[in-house]
Amino acid sequence: NGHSSVGGYRKSCWYEEEIEENLRWCFALNSILHTGVTQYQDIQLLDTKPFGKALVIDGKLQSAEIDEFIYHESLVHPALLHHINPKTIFIMGGGEGSTARELLRHKTVEKVIMCDIDEEVVDFCKSYLVVNREAFCDPRLELIINDARAELERKEECYDVIVGDLADPIEGGPCYKLYTKSFYESIAGPAGVFSHIEVFTCICNTLRQVFKYVVPYSAHIPSYADIWGWVMASDSPFTLSADELDLRMKQRIEGENRYLDGKTFTSASTLSKAVRKSLDNETHVYTEKSARFIYGHGKHNQA
Amino acid sequence: NGHSSVGGYRKSCWYEEEIEENLRWCFALNSILHTGVTQYQDIQLLDTKPFGKALVIDGKLQSAEIDEFIYHESLVHPALLHHINPKTIFIMGGGEGSTARELLRHKTVEKVIMCDIDEEVVDFCKSYLVVNREAFCDPRLELIINDARAELERKEECYDVIVGDLADPIEGGPCYKLYTKSFYESIAGPAGVFSHIEVFTCICNTLRQVFKYVVPYSAHIPSYADIWGWVMASDSPFTLSADELDLRMKQRIEGENRYLDGKTFTSASTLSKAVRKSLDNETHVYTEKSARFIYGHGKHNQA
Amino acid sequence: NGHSSVGGYRKSCWYEEEIEENLRWCFALNSILHTGVTQYQDIQLLDTKPFGKALVIDGKLQSAEIDEFIYHESLVHPALLHHINPKTIFIMGGGEGSTARELLRHKTVEKVIMCDIDEEVVDFCKSYLVVNREAFCDPRLELIINDARAELERKEECYDVIVGDLADPIEGGPCYKLYTKSFYESIAGPAGVFSHIEVFTCICNTLRQVFKYVVPYSAHIPSYADIWGWVMASDSPFTLSADELDLRMKQRIEGENRYLDGKTFTSASTLSKAVRKSLDNETHVYTEKSARFIYGHGKHNQA
Amino acid sequence: NGHSSVGGYRKSCWYEEEIEENLRWCFALNSILHTGVTQYQDIQLLDTKPFGKALVIDGKLQSAEIDEFIYHESLVHPALLHHINPKTIFIMGGGEGSTARELLRHKTVEKVIMCDIDEEVVDFCKSYLVVNREAFCDPRLELIINDARAELERKEECYDVIVGDLADPIEGGPCYKLYTKSFYESIAGPAGVFSHIEVFTCICNTLRQVFKYVVPYSAHIPSYADIWGWVMASDSPFTLSADELDLRMKQRIEGENRYLDGKTFTSASTLSKAVRKSLDNETHVYTEKSARFIYGHGKHNQA
Repeated sequence: NGHSSVGGYRKSCWYEEEIEENLRWCFALNSILHTGVTQYQDIQLLDTKPFGKALVIDGKLQSAEIDEFIYHESLVHPALLHHINPKTIFIMGGGEGSTARELLRHKTVEKVIMCDIDEEVVDFCKSYLVVNREAFCDPRLELIINDARAELERKEECYDVIVGDLADPIEGGPCYKLYTKSFYESIAGPAGVFSHIEVFTCICNTLRQVFKYVVPYSAHIPSYADIWGWVMASDSPFTLSADELDLRMKQRIEGENRYLDGKTFTSASTLSKAVRKSLDNETHVYTEKSARFIYGHGKHNQA
Repeated sequence: NGHSSVGGYRKSCWYEEEIEENLRWCFALNSILHTGVTQYQDIQLLDTKPFGKALVIDGKLQSAEIDEFIYHESLVHPALLHHINPKTIFIMGGGEGSTARELLRHKTVEKVIMCDIDEEVVDFCKSYLVVNREAFCDPRLELIINDARAELERKEECYDVIVGDLADPIEGGPCYKLYTKSFYESIAGPAGVFSHIEVFTCICNTLRQVFKYVVPYSAHIPSYADIWGWVMASDSPFTLSADELDLRMKQRIEGENRYLDGKTFTSASTLSKAVRKSLDNETHVYTEKSARFIYGHGKHNQA
Repeated sequence: NGHSSVGGYRKSCWYEEEIEENLRWCFALNSILHTGVTQYQDIQLLDTKPFGKALVIDGKLQSAEIDEFIYHESLVHPALLHHINPKTIFIMGGGEGSTARELLRHKTVEKVIMCDIDEEVVDFCKSYLVVNREAFCDPRLELIINDARAELERKEECYDVIVGDLADPIEGGPCYKLYTKSFYESIAGPAGVFSHIEVFTCICNTLRQVFKYVVPYSAHIPSYADIWGWVMASDSPFTLSADELDLRMKQRIEGENRYLDGKTFTSASTLSKAVRKSLDNETHVYTEKSARFIYGHGKHNQA
Repeated sequence: NGHSSVGGYRKSCWYEEEIEENLRWCFALNSILHTGVTQYQDIQLLDTKPFGKALVIDGKLQSAEIDEFIYHESLVHPALLHHINPKTIFIMGGGEGSTARELLRHKTVEKVIMCDIDEEVVDFCKSYLVVNREAFCDPRLELIINDARAELERKEECYDVIVGDLADPIEGGPCYKLYTKSFYESIAGPAGVFSHIEVFTCICNTLRQVFKYVVPYSAHIPSYADIWGWVMASDSPFTLSADELDLRMKQRIEGENRYLDGKTFTSASTLSKAVRKSLDNETHVYTEKSARFIYGHGKHNQA
């Protein structure tokens, strides 16, 4: 009987996320594995019944064991596969380690720089996210604790791909300055920039002001209760067919993807009429002065 | 400030749905517009803050004002467009009226039979769902109060398209017998049979036992917090390209779709690697004796 | 079976109150009867399953149909019964009408002045709270829309009893200035001043600075999930026994109390060891500059 | 600011109890310390923000760190103090250890038999409830794992006081047979039998059929969101005044009570008019065939 658990009582411990002021999403809990407060963010590792282990930062679900592969395969592989020979990669953020893990599956990759502002989050994930242990130990991974924008501007180096694996641009959070036009102008190369659908059209439009070719795509992440959007942007065109993508995956990526293949990307990058219309109608450009935020609060704007 | 409403207090009235035993989805409420108890089902019309007016049957959200067009356009148009000249349509269920509304937009359609078991639900929707008032008055619509299976078996008539607009197969609910192999064997013509992803692969597999051509497709419905799946099945092949679909839409459908066009359908029917794998691995066939249910309870199994 | 409702699904509409940041109290809803936004406050009239009709102001339950008599009998009768011949009564606040209703049951009472700052709340309650209709029409009732403190300071008049039927002192709400020492100094006569246990010891201590005799008492209000406290204060002693109270009730009050009699008051005013200890240890005096608030927010501190 | 926690996000992990089908009580969680499933019951030890560590059995809060002293002092001391010289005590249930702890504070007590049916609960509490460690090690304590009724019927022994520290009589739970008339007839001596107000009048009335003197009393337990009731029953009268109780506490009990003293008991045993009326009107007698249950489910009635 679906209504009764062992012992006949209802689930009594719950994780509750306010996706918006008017919308909540709640998971029954097995346990609260770890909690921490860093200089920048609050962090929790929960063991949830519907989605397995879940990383929560500032009261927002970041990734869940059961479906984080959808998010991270989608973030990493399209951009790298479209690059002719990606060797050096810069991750803005990415402290969780899953983005590095997917990048390091690419045989061409010689160096991955993970630049996260919050050392304690990185340490927390290194300790508790077993699935990324190997990636954290890979000699090709270099970890830098710094603001990603400052780091990119400081260095002369060029990267083959820059991947934005950032927390959402929430008011007072550390990330929103990495979504602006002026920032994009300062970097180059195809970049998978993730973004919630709420700010998706706006980020997309901002990238279009800076790059010649911009490819938005999306996928449903069950634990987010929502579609997630990503954008690839470059000054070279993205021209691979589904079959060519499948071939490159076979040649370049160790192991097999669980979510992404050529057909999946074709579907993901063919947006629905409604989303295409929103994109066409979008005129907002994301600057320091005209930031848009998703629902939530970071620490910095607390009195 | 996103956190405070007028008056500065948090939302205090909520609709809460248990999607699964371990998963809840909650909408802030403006008001509870109407509630009723019919012979078969409990019914509520709520005014929710995130999704507008919402129809809830047996504690399960059926459709929400803001995104029901995604569901109903996806249910109706692909099957009708693939038919050469659809004139007579049979809706199994559909008491809400939205499916009839979409069907009646097709200029070729001469007769729509809506066969719902629950007269009080139909009356409730007729009274309260303003958006479907016109459809309910269309002279091409014929309403029959009966079990759809009994009705289809009783009549000799043939329909060009049979559309299943049924509540989920929940234990004790009135609908699960309309998802079985023996039932599909008794009907014909391309049929958009909707289904939650949870029983989606199984329905798909069951249809494959009966029909030569089966096309599953899916879309994200925000108010469902989930992807929804539909299946078209026929003994004639489905061969239209995105452009051909767009052309037929233009020729045959009054007004413009908000969600569906050729490209959207192409994307919707190109399933992700993960879903394709589930479909390939599915061996279950849905019969009266091997029914699978989604989470929830109907009235009939109550002591 | 206690677990299933008609139709077998769980309650899906809920009122949720954050009693404190870490504590919630939730009632299943039948309906949301009325909602309004006044100049000062947000107001809702809900029909709840466990407690009947409930009046909610600024997200805080004010009174519920099923047990408001406990609150209002306790607020009104002890002070009036201890007075030798109460004729003129001033209610600070009281817009709901229930306090007036209880006062007007006293045969000695010739005039009740209800001074509430929020005319729209009074109108709302007049329209919707059927149980107080008769009281609102009683010719002995005079309604003044004003700040109670300003009104009391403006007038020369003396009242036999002043009853404080105020919303809690929440930050930004209109009421907290009616809980201060300087205010108490400006008024006289025995006064039933209600207060949540959270600020109870502090109000009690403040009254002790001003009045010679102070009697705190308390009762459990089921719909508040908590004990509620009241304080009578006067410069004449409170000396009636349980039997003398019962006699006066019989002589002076129309109809019969449901909650309060002599024994009940004896018990209510004999506080537990733990509460007595808190009262003895309390040193805080409530002034404009040292206000203490219960959890919640009024409109005035919203940006 | 009461609304924001460190980091500015709202509490996201909650314990939720359905007090009744229509009523919920929710505590923010620090962590889920331990969970277990025994032969009879499900058991959780939670660290809650509002009430400290909380023991939950079958989805019902049993006791919370912050206020369990109210419950256990009220359960134990009145009955023992009214006995002339209590030496041997039998606890029905009591596996948590707090009742034994309070009993063992009495200098007259030579032997405490704790008879609980669920060894795993006892072991769980022994391991995790630090506050009762000393009591569990006291040489005067004898632990028996058995059904309390069977144990009492099996033994010839007489006890000075029998204390019922049982879980509520929930359907399918192990305890309801210890609330019946036939059971009470089989035992003797003053007995503090606790009970929720919901079955309180009925238990009280049942005891009146069996014992000459019955004293009901009650107290508010904040973590229960409710008043709790206890009943002392004996064939000898209960005649001590508040002062006599205070004297005996001083003479007989090690350390000082936090909640109970003579005045507190006087107040607790002077019930309100409303409760007295309910008691007077109660005609139900609790037998095996006419059991009344509080809301909830134990394991035994699960299919």
